[in-house]
Amino acid sequence: MSLIVTGSIGIDTIETPTGKAPEVLGGSVVYFAAAASFFTPVRLVGAAGEDFPPAFLETLKHLPGHGVDLAGLELRKGSKTFRWTGLYHANMNVRDTVEVQLNVLAEKLPKVPPAYQDSRQVFLANTHPAGQIELLQQFPKAELVVADTMDLWINNEKPALLALLQKVHGLVLNDSEAALLTSETNLVKAAQAVLKLGPRFTVIKKGEHGSMLVHGDGIVALPAWPAEAVVDPTGAGDSFAGGMMGYLAAGDTRKPPTLAALRKAMAYGTVVASFNIEAFSLERLLQLSRADLDDRLAAYTRMLAV
Amino acid sequence: MSLIVTGSIGIDTIETPTGKAPEVLGGSVVYFAAAASFFTPVRLVGAAGEDFPPAFLETLKHLPGHGVDLAGLELRKGSKTFRWTGLYHANMNVRDTVEVQLNVLAEKLPKVPPAYQDSRQVFLANTHPAGQIELLQQFPKAELVVADTMDLWINNEKPALLALLQKVHGLVLNDSEAALLTSETNLVKAAQAVLKLGPRFTVIKKGEHGSMLVHGDGIVALPAWPAEAVVDPTGAGDSFAGGMMGYLAAGDTRKPPTLAALRKAMAYGTVVASFNIEAFSLERLLQLSRADLDDRLAAYTRMLAV
Repeated sequence: MSLIVTGSIGIDTIETPTGKAPEVLGGSVVYFAAAASFFTPVRLVGAAGEDFPPAFLETLKHLPGHGVDLAGLELRKGSKTFRWTGLYHANMNVRDTVEVQLNVLAEKLPKVPPAYQDSRQVFLANTHPAGQIELLQQFPKAELVVADTMDLWINNEKPALLALLQKVHGLVLNDSEAALLTSETNLVKAAQAVLKLGPRFTVIKKGEHGSMLVHGDGIVALPAWPAEAVVDPTGAGDSFAGGMMGYLAAGDTRKPPTLAALRKAMAYGTVVASFNIEAFSLERLLQLSRADLDDRLAAYTRMLAV
Repeated sequence: MSLIVTGSIGIDTIETPTGKAPEVLGGSVVYFAAAASFFTPVRLVGAAGEDFPPAFLETLKHLPGHGVDLAGLELRKGSKTFRWTGLYHANMNVRDTVEVQLNVLAEKLPKVPPAYQDSRQVFLANTHPAGQIELLQQFPKAELVVADTMDLWINNEKPALLALLQKVHGLVLNDSEAALLTSETNLVKAAQAVLKLGPRFTVIKKGEHGSMLVHGDGIVALPAWPAEAVVDPTGAGDSFAGGMMGYLAAGDTRKPPTLAALRKAMAYGTVVASFNIEAFSLERLLQLSRADLDDRLAAYTRMLAV
């Protein structure tokens, strides 16, 4: 039970059809850690700049659940925090990136504290695959390693990404990325093609359409929770991955997760993500308890009892 | 147990990335009836022309399952059968209609045989809503009435469609049509808005992303069966509706179907549709038994046991 996550910390400005949130806490590692901490303590590795608001630090210090160890959060002098401005369309499955300032993300990788080197479960949130490999090498005792990626690296850094895939147990990516990586338009075939590149399992995120798992022992397709009050989809994929990995890391990872464990983990990921999109930034997750997650999981289970 | 379906009978020419099927048996009522007949006897009302191939008639006479009563199949002298030519893209969720010849569909409605007037369950497959109303009036004992529709009628025949919705228990339509009808981009809200127009339940078909039910007692989202060998998606929606209605009609419809019954019906619809897309036209359904459906339903149920 020592889950570590590495990835981006951001200051997001978001506009959706329901409203606008200027300069709010975001980033893949933030959503992931907040979601995973409902299940297990989380160690965070990431870098922000001098401009990182103290209030955001307070938020990270007081996440609900088991909490997040911030020893690996580097507030780098002379650097600025990653910033992202996004605009969602009326159909919130579609968004435009209005502005990106990479800032500290374009500099050297954050340092991994020596105390983190015994981490058993590792989630490599989306960043340059060479960086993901370099970070992973600092966790020699890792039992379960799962990575996310994106179209940018599939298009521009394929050799590094393929090298990474040889080193991970699972890959999480969205449907268009899976098609791009494998040249397969059928999602089952795309996920199966990913398995030939190294991972034991592929999880494809489909946004409002749910998720799919392809594993040597079988295939699982799950719907999203039917949400009628979507305020901000930002972080849905990262909180899904956080719920999934948090659930797995709370169990025994000395053996690879079974199909049944992965299915349950995806269901928890689905539920955490469904809460996350009900408000901007971490607002909704901050108000949540594990009991809320379990209640919605029970309703999700009943919904799927065909 | 007297399910009637009215809709189109067609001669389809289909091209998909996997192959081409020139002049094969198709039409909404054909796919629906073939799917529903695994569950209950089906009465068919539809018109074809003089050119309707005798071999297609033989196929309809020898469908597996409980069979289809063809007393309502009118082979109209001097008329031609409806023809549709479709081309599917590499992503089989997208298709172009290359050519449509309405032919007999542009003429008067088919006659309903007097012996059909005691039908208890009615499925009004997609056609002009005024025609759907006219057909429905010939089934005074109808207990369960479900209709399908399409963008053409939503755009051009809204008053007639709204009148129809006052007369049906359920509406089946696809996601983009639901958004078009209600001006809601969120699917749950769109389906809820449909309920305000009359129906007790809305079923939204999402193709490879599954289906959603909104009912006064709750909401159900179900995934599609994860299919890796899609040959031809034509008829997926109609065979889904056929499996759904066939299951419901095989039960007691004197009271409105419960949420649980509708969920199970959708699951059967999902399973029949998943077989249908494995081959062109009715090829796959013709080889199928109820036991095949039950086996895949059991696998689907296991897949969803989170």
